[in-house]
Amino acid sequence: MFDYQAAFETAVEQVKGEGRYRVFADLKRVRGQFPKAIRRRADGSEQDVVVWCSNDYLGMGQHPVVLDAMKDEVDAAGAGAGGTRNISGTTRSAVDLEAELASWHRKEAALLFTSGYVANEATLTTLQRILPGLIIFSDSLNHASMIAGIRNGGCERHIFAHNDLEHLEALLAAAPADAPKLIAFESVYSMDGDIADLAGTIALAKKYGAMTYLDEVHAVGLYGPTGAGVAERDGLLDGIDIVECTLGKAIGVMGGYIAADAVIIDAVRSWASGFIFTTSLPPALTAGALASVRHLKAHPELRDAHQERAATLKARFVAAGIPVMESVSHIVPVFVGDPVHTKMISDMLLEQHGIYVQPINYPTVPKGTERLRFTPSPNHTDAMMDDLVQAMDALWTHCNVARLPAVA
Amino acid sequence: MFDYQAAFETAVEQVKGEGRYRVFADLKRVRGQFPKAIRRRADGSEQDVVVWCSNDYLGMGQHPVVLDAMKDEVDAAGAGAGGTRNISGTTRSAVDLEAELASWHRKEAALLFTSGYVANEATLTTLQRILPGLIIFSDSLNHASMIAGIRNGGCERHIFAHNDLEHLEALLAAAPADAPKLIAFESVYSMDGDIADLAGTIALAKKYGAMTYLDEVHAVGLYGPTGAGVAERDGLLDGIDIVECTLGKAIGVMGGYIAADAVIIDAVRSWASGFIFTTSLPPALTAGALASVRHLKAHPELRDAHQERAATLKARFVAAGIPVMESVSHIVPVFVGDPVHTKMISDMLLEQHGIYVQPINYPTVPKGTERLRFTPSPNHTDAMMDDLVQAMDALWTHCNVARLPAVA
Ligand SMILES: Cc1ncc(COP(=O)(O)O)c(C=O)c1O
Ligand SMILES: Cc1ncc(COP(=O)(O)O)c(C=O)c1O
Repeated sequence: MFDYQAAFETAVEQVKGEGRYRVFADLKRVRGQFPKAIRRRADGSEQDVVVWCSNDYLGMGQHPVVLDAMKDEVDAAGAGAGGTRNISGTTRSAVDLEAELASWHRKEAALLFTSGYVANEATLTTLQRILPGLIIFSDSLNHASMIAGIRNGGCERHIFAHNDLEHLEALLAAAPADAPKLIAFESVYSMDGDIADLAGTIALAKKYGAMTYLDEVHAVGLYGPTGAGVAERDGLLDGIDIVECTLGKAIGVMGGYIAADAVIIDAVRSWASGFIFTTSLPPALTAGALASVRHLKAHPELRDAHQERAATLKARFVAAGIPVMESVSHIVPVFVGDPVHTKMISDMLLEQHGIYVQPINYPTVPKGTERLRFTPSPNHTDAMMDDLVQAMDALWTHCNVARLPAVA
Repeated sequence: MFDYQAAFETAVEQVKGEGRYRVFADLKRVRGQFPKAIRRRADGSEQDVVVWCSNDYLGMGQHPVVLDAMKDEVDAAGAGAGGTRNISGTTRSAVDLEAELASWHRKEAALLFTSGYVANEATLTTLQRILPGLIIFSDSLNHASMIAGIRNGGCERHIFAHNDLEHLEALLAAAPADAPKLIAFESVYSMDGDIADLAGTIALAKKYGAMTYLDEVHAVGLYGPTGAGVAERDGLLDGIDIVECTLGKAIGVMGGYIAADAVIIDAVRSWASGFIFTTSLPPALTAGALASVRHLKAHPELRDAHQERAATLKARFVAAGIPVMESVSHIVPVFVGDPVHTKMISDMLLEQHGIYVQPINYPTVPKGTERLRFTPSPNHTDAMMDDLVQAMDALWTHCNVARLPAVA
């Protein structure tokens, strides 16, 4: 008979052997003190840390308007939704949130999912059922949830080189003119911090009769006059057929959604297994997200502060010779290029300096491009940056990691 | 070029043509008044309703211990988790909840997912990667999320007739003796209310060297001395290798989990895309679920009241000649057998009697077995049952639906 124990052990050993076994830091976020948190070590002892890798980009996860909305809704409506959307799980705040999100992206309708992952996975799988013969053109660095959705539908798919519109055009041109086509891409790529050429991609979509599917998970709340994302910043909301976002990063809560024409939403709503057969988001989450979105729309100064912090950190790293990777967004990736080194620096930052930034290893990024990924928020102070840059500088010397040419 | 608009319209029309287009009732749950709620009609007017189809089986979604835990945690830790489990998303209450859940099911470890759907989908897909050559034996009435997970992994799979151990054994016997095998099944099947033969299934698993994977989504909190599910009730916790549950039904919040040997959890944790690449559950949800589980463990009288309510409703329907389907659990399904009729009765119950119970149509149940599905909770009073049985009796006459032979 088969030896299950050994097979599971092998699976874990393989991950360890590749230097990508993950030990999760056990953190206690302390409301009002973000990005500070309390870490609990394996032995139970505690340590104050500054979190430098949260995706709560603007600190909305501790904003009083969000917390008050959540608590009020717990008081008004209770804990969970109590069922799927169809079976008594369609709560008032979910309906109101969908309307708000649709208008934010200037679309006719929106549809909530339990997460951004599920939104991508379920929508991309379902589009393949709704549009038989669909051919999907997918950016090579697309997120795991898009890849899962594309794969699970089983349709013909072509991967184009990251942000390479020439390659995309060659693939589009080679496909039958009358076949349904979908270009799936992201605006901000969260591990590199680069931003797609939306105008160029939309132009190609028009030329070759393709739909556009844009993941703005790392842009929503952060770009554009009202924070609706890069498509809003670039004045291209109309050029995107389906936009997909999360409620869990800049919005600070949890959940995901798509926004599109009403008929698209109605079709996905009616066909997507990952939407139909799952308990809906708790009223407190939809109410919290609604409050957050309304706040974000009205407060562009949060976005300005966010960009300023990112630019400042990049400049300070450059001045210290720390190899910041090229990034045109709020993401500040620092190149290390080796999983063991990355993990070691991350561990030392944590233990010796109380600075928490996770190593980013394969499968999140390609092997050989392992890095540290910093996400400064408006709540990260100059003093915190002083500590961080000093610590990095010391570790870079200590570990003898490559510096930028200028100061190497 | 392809006509997308027409294709999406066709997809919606097809669903409408099959009588399974869903219109979600927009409900406002009112804390402290469950199962009462306020429905908002399309025209904006409101109506008081009694919800008879919630999966908040014990009303824990409004229990003060849960709500207080959630609000306290919002105050202490904020709104969202701020990242994936690996990137600053491992919060204290998530770690504590996993420990509590593991001990509840008497397993070494547990792993949280964003939902029960994702727990099934991600785990079943991932097991196929960890155990190459895996053959899965799946009950024909398994939930959509299990089917999705099994399909997406692409392994060899065999569907056995619902709860038919002879058929299962024949399939097991026909498979290579040394191949890794997994039997995937549920304890309580939520649309019919029948319960699997756990002892028989476990015996077959032992005989043929298969692992057992049990979905206790509709049983956790509801069966067994401490509410750990049917496996606990039957004294068979050890016979189940991997148990999967939701935090969104009897526990009253949202989320999902598996519990198993530590090495299994570690392997799934390290390999499952649907676990790795998604924002973790907000601290308020894990804290609320933790409080709920602790309460459920200590309060068997809730489970007794729940069973009493279900038995009473079944008896009252039988006395009135309403065709209750055979069910040995807390689920009270009433047979209609036609999607249009089911929808009509459901609409009339709602509009004329303020009784909310959704029509259960394909694809949730096979065509021809459309039904109403009642889920009485300890909070459903005798007076509410009077109203319900009277209304059903009147509609059964009005719509000329078949009754039970005895009183036909
Ligand atoms: C590009 C991208 N899309 C989708 C997701 C999934 O969103 P969520 O965390 O809400 O599941 C993530 C990260 O989590 C992401 O980075
Ligand atoms: C048997 C079964 N498994 C899993 C799920 C999914 O659980 P969740 O609602 O937490 O996604 C459901 C229903 O929603 C279910 O009925």
